[in-house]
Amino acid sequence: MARSDRPVAAVDIGGTKIIAAVFDGNGAMLSRIYCLTLAHEGPARVIKRLNQTIDRAIEKAGLQRSRVAGIGVAAAAIIDINRGLVTEAPNLPRWRNVPLPALISGEFNLPVYLLNDASAAALGEHRYGAGRGLNNLIYITVSTGIGGGIIIDGELYNGTDGCAAEIGHMVIMVDGPACNCGRRGCLESLASGTAIGRMAKERLAYGETSIMRALAGNVIEDVTSVTVARAARKGDMLALDVIRTAAGYLGIGLANLVNILNPQMIIIGGGVSSMGAMLLGPARKAIKAHAFKLPASTVRIVRPALGMDAGLSGAAEYARRKGRIAA
Amino acid sequence: MARSDRPVAAVDIGGTKIIAAVFDGNGAMLSRIYCLTLAHEGPARVIKRLNQTIDRAIEKAGLQRSRVAGIGVAAAAIIDINRGLVTEAPNLPRWRNVPLPALISGEFNLPVYLLNDASAAALGEHRYGAGRGLNNLIYITVSTGIGGGIIIDGELYNGTDGCAAEIGHMVIMVDGPACNCGRRGCLESLASGTAIGRMAKERLAYGETSIMRALAGNVIEDVTSVTVARAARKGDMLALDVIRTAAGYLGIGLANLVNILNPQMIIIGGGVSSMGAMLLGPARKAIKAHAFKLPASTVRIVRPALGMDAGLSGAAEYARRKGRIAA
Repeated sequence: MARSDRPVAAVDIGGTKIIAAVFDGNGAMLSRIYCLTLAHEGPARVIKRLNQTIDRAIEKAGLQRSRVAGIGVAAAAIIDINRGLVTEAPNLPRWRNVPLPALISGEFNLPVYLLNDASAAALGEHRYGAGRGLNNLIYITVSTGIGGGIIIDGELYNGTDGCAAEIGHMVIMVDGPACNCGRRGCLESLASGTAIGRMAKERLAYGETSIMRALAGNVIEDVTSVTVARAARKGDMLALDVIRTAAGYLGIGLANLVNILNPQMIIIGGGVSSMGAMLLGPARKAIKAHAFKLPASTVRIVRPALGMDAGLSGAAEYARRKGRIAA
Repeated sequence: MARSDRPVAAVDIGGTKIIAAVFDGNGAMLSRIYCLTLAHEGPARVIKRLNQTIDRAIEKAGLQRSRVAGIGVAAAAIIDINRGLVTEAPNLPRWRNVPLPALISGEFNLPVYLLNDASAAALGEHRYGAGRGLNNLIYITVSTGIGGGIIIDGELYNGTDGCAAEIGHMVIMVDGPACNCGRRGCLESLASGTAIGRMAKERLAYGETSIMRALAGNVIEDVTSVTVARAARKGDMLALDVIRTAAGYLGIGLANLVNILNPQMIIIGGGVSSMGAMLLGPARKAIKAHAFKLPASTVRIVRPALGMDAGLSGAAEYARRKGRIAA
């Protein structure tokens, strides 16, 4: 049996949780285990917990480690694919040049393939989800931060070092709001969940009327993008306006990508994207307003088909493809 | 003899001039003819002149038309590669959905391959110039406007419709200055030759002291990016500051590309790039400041090796490759 037909494990590590899974050779999920990242404990403890989670997923799938062909690792991080390093990770404190693949493969004696989490989701959606059969697509995840993945010619585009598709850190407003990356005016600082929460808080502090104040128990500091979404669904004018503003910025970022990459599809995932039409409507309008006619009329803006498991599916697919090349 | 080894013709059509050339199978230039575009005369007359220019280049190369394998056409325009159309072209008035390849091949009875002029330059620099042997690179031309071309996996990246790499129309300043494309805050509106001229004029009109006033015969309206460059070379503080400002914006645009595409190289061509270190120094600094460490340390920022003929060379190379696929 070819190595690529054997089961593969996948793990998705983010700032909040770690999810591990095992997939068979056809991409069907055999098991799924999750635990909290507890990122504040630092890399060593997190990696120990990550290895335990993979181990439990393999066990739950009823497999011996030796039956697994490889492990795909999707991390919310800036990856150096050539040296096998997590170079930096805004949501994983103290991760600096961590040789994550070596620290996992040392435990399992299996080949480990590291990639960015949004790139993994792009690959998952392309192989099994909304983008099946397409040539070019962009996946963007809008949640606490904004990440991205790019498919070109039906393959994941990693760039030279493996850190391409940092869409959230495209500057669209010179000298704009401070971003988590330490710079200013990035798309993430204007259209992420964090940005939506910040804009709402600023306007509430300024005295604007809104049910968000009550929803947050009159503690403005507790308002988040979830509060904004809840208020907007109840028709709150301020909440709706904040979302419209963020969606407009999102649309400008997407229009830039449309002008630069002329893709067939942009898939908008991540927690904030569950706002649906409230967010996607104004974003689509902004794309029409800011991109050239031809590429703006070509691109389809859609929601993901795989939901939260796109990253896991993609990490497994990545391990399968890389294993095939290595075999 | 394979079709691809035969000579190919190439033509580069911009808002100011038309240049046609013939290249042998190894990429050596056999002839070169140029004439003015006289774009205000409209598409029909310009295309007639373009066909005459190609004809004269073939004749000057001492060839029969039937000996030429095909014609590569580089146009300063938004191309629809699938339908063979120039859809729009900011510097070619009244060009709307012009079937340029059909109008040329109807005259010569040869296959015609249309691409964007900056994409052609990217291909030329990759095949024969500064980017030889690289996997990923971005070419950016900074002149009256800002255009781009992207090489991925050693091949020209056209996108879905053939209009990818419109780098100049990436918004980096929401609600920024008006751009030729009709929108606001595009990189082109902040870092092109036109933008440099405009910023200088605004500051002169505001009363700032500079030798630019004298260089332009005391007519502020006559100040262009060429005036700014001349004054800067003489140490004029205002001119130097305007260039530094534009270069900073250019660097932010390039940093966005570095974060999105993680390329091995960015080649900066076009008339404005002849300012050299005055422009590239601050641009390099801005890339370091605005891109992630890893991709910023990878990318090499260089000048083109082929100068003004990169587009012609690339258009010929494109015709050669496309001809090979068709053969």
